[in-house]
Amino acid sequence: MNILIVHCHPEPRSFNAALSDIAMTSLTREGHEVHVSDLYAEGFDPVERASHFESRADPEYFSALTEQRHHVQSGTLPCDVQREIDRLQHADLVILQFPLWWHAQPAMLKGWFDRVFVYGGLYSGTRRYDRGPLQGKRAMCSVTTGAPEPTFSPTGRSGDIVSLMWPLHCSLYYVGFDVLPPQITYGVQGGGLSYQEDAAFQCHLEDAKQQWSQRLRHWQTDRPIPFTGWQDWNAQGETLPEHPLRWRI
Amino acid sequence: MNILIVHCHPEPRSFNAALSDIAMTSLTREGHEVHVSDLYAEGFDPVERASHFESRADPEYFSALTEQRHHVQSGTLPCDVQREIDRLQHADLVILQFPLWWHAQPAMLKGWFDRVFVYGGLYSGTRRYDRGPLQGKRAMCSVTTGAPEPTFSPTGRSGDIVSLMWPLHCSLYYVGFDVLPPQITYGVQGGGLSYQEDAAFQCHLEDAKQQWSQRLRHWQTDRPIPFTGWQDWNAQGETLPEHPLRWRI
Repeated sequence: MNILIVHCHPEPRSFNAALSDIAMTSLTREGHEVHVSDLYAEGFDPVERASHFESRADPEYFSALTEQRHHVQSGTLPCDVQREIDRLQHADLVILQFPLWWHAQPAMLKGWFDRVFVYGGLYSGTRRYDRGPLQGKRAMCSVTTGAPEPTFSPTGRSGDIVSLMWPLHCSLYYVGFDVLPPQITYGVQGGGLSYQEDAAFQCHLEDAKQQWSQRLRHWQTDRPIPFTGWQDWNAQGETLPEHPLRWRI
Repeated sequence: MNILIVHCHPEPRSFNAALSDIAMTSLTREGHEVHVSDLYAEGFDPVERASHFESRADPEYFSALTEQRHHVQSGTLPCDVQREIDRLQHADLVILQFPLWWHAQPAMLKGWFDRVFVYGGLYSGTRRYDRGPLQGKRAMCSVTTGAPEPTFSPTGRSGDIVSLMWPLHCSLYYVGFDVLPPQITYGVQGGGLSYQEDAAFQCHLEDAKQQWSQRLRHWQTDRPIPFTGWQDWNAQGETLPEHPLRWRI
């Protein structure tokens, strides 16, 4: 199978980089073909803006959706966006590897959604959710947090990790992905005093790598997160009363 | 009072720009002093990375938190970051005006959190949440969505707006803000055929401007969203059993 790792961290020797490396090694060893989008190393520009579109559909008023749809149709999307779309379309599994910064993905990865998930290409009004163009593919987040696991609860100091991941999982589902439960590695300190040279860091890292490579052995059979879909909604996008609550189980 | 509007939209004639303008006009008319951080117009760089720090605390290994703390202490933060911090410290109310892109704020605004909410300055291990440095100040999001209001429910097509706003509200609370309930303007189409010249657009815009300026009349007395705080947690950041559920009411 074909696997894409979208890697988002500014430091090549980071904990996150080690997790991407072990995923690459483990999955390659099992016979898969693995590609990596290293957003920082490739200098990806995460800001959706007018200057990305050389010839504008509407030169007077910049609407991201208008320009995206126009440039999909004319085959003139920005090179970096088209490259990411090609990688997504080639992949059977997409892994997003990133640290939780300010309760979400870093801006670099947020902008990967803003720019790459183009209107008219990766979704339209009728082709989204369980009818999205990427249906049949799987996606999974591998996330590191600074705070330790016991603080993550609905009333705990760090809040509920399911709620924090929810917007990102919604975005993946929106274009058709089956979204697998995330791999969360808690308590990864990003600051501090040469933490990366510390014995405790190495110990934590080895443990996290082992758990991650074990988890990756059954990505093809893991049960995706259930979402409501077209069969649950009326034409206005409201829930049909006869359908039970399937959202966020 | 002093008010900061952090405005995030790439098009100067957008619906979002009109909402920032009416906020500026309404609040100025009531005698407040209003400043605007127009992130796109000012060319803010939302990507936290090594190149922002000329002299590094650790030249070998880039940790955002290590560099942030070091440059706070030495008074050598990047100019754009220091400018935003000065604006925040001057403000009694901070308004974030943005469109909901991919279930969250645009990358441009996400990176404003990543870069401006610096470790050692706007928070530390002991100075965060209801002990955060910005306590006593208020913050409010004013958000436009593409999808119409009836689709936003926990099992509806667009999901629960409270859940989607949750990570962002957590980030504001983290540095000490009292977070006011957001102003949501639903069904603002960003794509389409010269929507901005359409009579329906003008009608929707006039209605939204009126609701927004009315809302702004009582920002000083609106009740903030309740969060759990230090009194609810033990030293490990877990919820104390004797405290009731106060989170997300």
